[in-house]
Amino acid sequence: MSFKKDVYLLFDDKKGTKKGDAFLEYFISSLIILNVICIFLESYKDIRIRFKDVFYSIEIFSIVFFTIEYIIRIWVSDLKYQNLTPFKARIKYIFSFLGLIDLISILPFYLPYIIKIDLRVVRVLRLFRLLRILKLNRHSRSVKMIGKVLKNTKNDILVTIFMVFILLVLSSTLMYSIENEAQPEAFENIGQALWWAVATLTTVGYGDIYPITGFGKFLSGIIALLGIGIVALPTGIISSAYIEEVQKTKKKAICIKCGEQIEKKIIP
Amino acid sequence: MSFKKDVYLLFDDKKGTKKGDAFLEYFISSLIILNVICIFLESYKDIRIRFKDVFYSIEIFSIVFFTIEYIIRIWVSDLKYQNLTPFKARIKYIFSFLGLIDLISILPFYLPYIIKIDLRVVRVLRLFRLLRILKLNRHSRSVKMIGKVLKNTKNDILVTIFMVFILLVLSSTLMYSIENEAQPEAFENIGQALWWAVATLTTVGYGDIYPITGFGKFLSGIIALLGIGIVALPTGIISSAYIEEVQKTKKKAICIKCGEQIEKKIIP
Amino acid sequence: MSFKKDVYLLFDDKKGTKKGDAFLEYFISSLIILNVICIFLESYKDIRIRFKDVFYSIEIFSIVFFTIEYIIRIWVSDLKYQNLTPFKARIKYIFSFLGLIDLISILPFYLPYIIKIDLRVVRVLRLFRLLRILKLNRHSRSVKMIGKVLKNTKNDILVTIFMVFILLVLSSTLMYSIENEAQPEAFENIGQALWWAVATLTTVGYGDIYPITGFGKFLSGIIALLGIGIVALPTGIISSAYIEEVQKTKKKAICIKCGEQIEKKIIP
Amino acid sequence: MSFKKDVYLLFDDKKGTKKGDAFLEYFISSLIILNVICIFLESYKDIRIRFKDVFYSIEIFSIVFFTIEYIIRIWVSDLKYQNLTPFKARIKYIFSFLGLIDLISILPFYLPYIIKIDLRVVRVLRLFRLLRILKLNRHSRSVKMIGKVLKNTKNDILVTIFMVFILLVLSSTLMYSIENEAQPEAFENIGQALWWAVATLTTVGYGDIYPITGFGKFLSGIIALLGIGIVALPTGIISSAYIEEVQKTKKKAICIKCGEQIEKKIIP
Repeated sequence: MSFKKDVYLLFDDKKGTKKGDAFLEYFISSLIILNVICIFLESYKDIRIRFKDVFYSIEIFSIVFFTIEYIIRIWVSDLKYQNLTPFKARIKYIFSFLGLIDLISILPFYLPYIIKIDLRVVRVLRLFRLLRILKLNRHSRSVKMIGKVLKNTKNDILVTIFMVFILLVLSSTLMYSIENEAQPEAFENIGQALWWAVATLTTVGYGDIYPITGFGKFLSGIIALLGIGIVALPTGIISSAYIEEVQKTKKKAICIKCGEQIEKKIIP
Repeated sequence: MSFKKDVYLLFDDKKGTKKGDAFLEYFISSLIILNVICIFLESYKDIRIRFKDVFYSIEIFSIVFFTIEYIIRIWVSDLKYQNLTPFKARIKYIFSFLGLIDLISILPFYLPYIIKIDLRVVRVLRLFRLLRILKLNRHSRSVKMIGKVLKNTKNDILVTIFMVFILLVLSSTLMYSIENEAQPEAFENIGQALWWAVATLTTVGYGDIYPITGFGKFLSGIIALLGIGIVALPTGIISSAYIEEVQKTKKKAICIKCGEQIEKKIIP
Repeated sequence: MSFKKDVYLLFDDKKGTKKGDAFLEYFISSLIILNVICIFLESYKDIRIRFKDVFYSIEIFSIVFFTIEYIIRIWVSDLKYQNLTPFKARIKYIFSFLGLIDLISILPFYLPYIIKIDLRVVRVLRLFRLLRILKLNRHSRSVKMIGKVLKNTKNDILVTIFMVFILLVLSSTLMYSIENEAQPEAFENIGQALWWAVATLTTVGYGDIYPITGFGKFLSGIIALLGIGIVALPTGIISSAYIEEVQKTKKKAICIKCGEQIEKKIIP
Repeated sequence: MSFKKDVYLLFDDKKGTKKGDAFLEYFISSLIILNVICIFLESYKDIRIRFKDVFYSIEIFSIVFFTIEYIIRIWVSDLKYQNLTPFKARIKYIFSFLGLIDLISILPFYLPYIIKIDLRVVRVLRLFRLLRILKLNRHSRSVKMIGKVLKNTKNDILVTIFMVFILLVLSSTLMYSIENEAQPEAFENIGQALWWAVATLTTVGYGDIYPITGFGKFLSGIIALLGIGIVALPTGIISSAYIEEVQKTKKKAICIKCGEQIEKKIIP
């Protein structure tokens, strides 16, 4: 049992203070980054052919390592969630976000009927595992802060996305009506017009599709200007949430003369 | 009269708590989204021809349903605005924003002399009706917040738009003077130059029109850098308004003199 | 003298409350907008030839009107700045921003040796005169606010511009070194590279010039990502100044129970 | 020793109040700007050939001047850091950021084996030396402010960059999988896809590479919309830090209990 606890502490994200602990985390991170570099290099035809064996060896080693790690994590998960029964604790780990990532990043290897292209993408998902290391180190405060801000603004951002969605559908239908006759190939259907609308509203503007009629250009200008508002709105929302969060953690003042805590009592 | 009240409660946005109520809202929303999907798919020539009958049936059903709904809404609107006379209440509903959308989304069908292209755009306007459902659910606080912020910043945003407008006209005239000789076709008139100015100031930059002379490029750089300021200004305005609005709802302080809750009386 | 005062009140921006006052302002504004529309339309060759006489008549009328107006404004400027001697008051008006705009917008007509192209640009400068009407109406608070914010952030924005300038020069020189061999025509000199740097840093990205070498693309990516920071910095500066300005005008609270003013004493 | 002190005061950034002091700073700044203009002009082939001697003379003069200046700065650095031993003070200056820039901007001239292209870039690094003059003048407060804000937000910005990095790698791998078959030349490898991902996420959108398949366009739209969030997050972070910093310098409150000025003691 003591051995199991040692293993648990080795793999756990939060309690880890021993040297081996950090070493393991950095080893796993390095392995993930090595994997991503391999995926990157494999996409170059010349390199893929020449170093075929190297890539294969790294992949086999990674799969074996991550499989053993996954099994260990399942095994020790009852120590992580001690208030749950061993079975429930394991279920909880398996279906947690990082647990699913752990599984997804090794599973495809054992399922030969999944096509090769998907495999590559799935292996990149291992990147999410790097989030674990963020929790460990001195950036954890920032991660928590950004997490809280994104959580607090979720509803407002969703409403903004909904407004963007309506705007995109309206403007693409309108643009399709206007430009379809002048450019039957570029604005062939509303799907194409939607592609134009997204590129314009986000101010990307690839330049592969744009209006050529006077009225189309006028509408495009309006959409592009609204794009500025679309940037301003979420920025305002996030700024506001960020400032609020900073003030929450900081504004407990003490008067240095009389020693009393000066506290703004916030009534929600 | 009791039946009329039941119908009213079924269609009303705010008081609806019964099960049928939410069901009706979701049914209407689904029908609207189905309509939008149809408009989208109809723009693909192959699909339009093959599923002509399906699209026609859905359209007829929608028109019949929305017509009946519109008549019912007029009928029960005297219960919505109880402090008005029945006639005034009906007028008020008909000329409200959502009332007009309700009308506009069915009217074209009964006016055969309106051209087909406009019809398609008009049907997309039904999307605005989805705003009703936003009022119903848990996002209503966010909608109200964003609405208030946009209302509070209206004047400031208008002044910004006016500044953008002056900047666009000045820079397009200037650019037309500079580039007209070097690119008589691209910068054929100020309208073209205005199209360039909008694409540059909003940082969309399609790449279909851009200066080629040295001085033109210099001016274009200045405009693009001002574009950053043009983003920063409304963002600052909206952030500020957002923070103010959040603080209004949250910061209820206690007066240290009398111990009572301070309602902040704003002295302008 | 009473007539002169009447004339003064007619043309003055702030004290104007009479009906004729607003009428005059709106007449001048309309004339300016008519002028801008003419400049716009004149740039279309067909329209320019067909309506030559109309454009000429409008221009002559405008010049005559604006000349008379300019003389009147000089004449009554001693009433505007009553604490100055008549001569100094006139000098002050002539060299004020709006006074110079008034002069510049009529002067070129009397100087036949200035080339036609400049004339067109100069006439557009009349647009600045529309700023006068902003002072009159209900947007004046917003204009003042934006003005104050821009004034308060001037120093910080200048430092940002200086940083942008250094970044532009550094990245364009670097990119010229990298891409000159691969694309001797596109990156022919640092001027061209600077054009690329501006388009990238402001995220306009016309697509007429971009790196093709691996290292060039890497640098371009870094510059584009820094472009996001370049947007974030002035936005943060302006947001902060805006919030400060709003708080200055609003935060004077009164406790509704004991009636005392709760005031944060700000020590600069 | 008195002469050495005079020299020190002449070159020091902060204590300089004499006339010669500012003159020296402005002379150095002018020389740097002249150098940058030369680098700029030299990149134009015609100018480079015609004014070869002028450029060479300026370069020799600059190198001699900056070398003497560098030696003087080393010599007087023991007066700058008086609490250190003369040796340590010199080491400290040599390895300070501006000390290294001073060295880097003259060193390459004495190392003939470094290739010419690098030399040009290195000479541009002298621009950083202009930062010294910013410290001298009235913009020093803004520089300090921006410096503090960037320092305070460092951790949060790093986390944002990490998130951007994960997003870029994920989306480029995914896009490579999707588009590789349809456009084997444009999306030849993940490096190319990464170039697309950066151009899209930063909303630059050169238009040299973009998806053509339906699913690729869909993914591209998602990435572009996320690009808006990627702008919003650092903007919110910087705005918040800026506001905090402004409030720190301005809001010194009075304790209502004891009447003394409250120095806010922050309880984390």
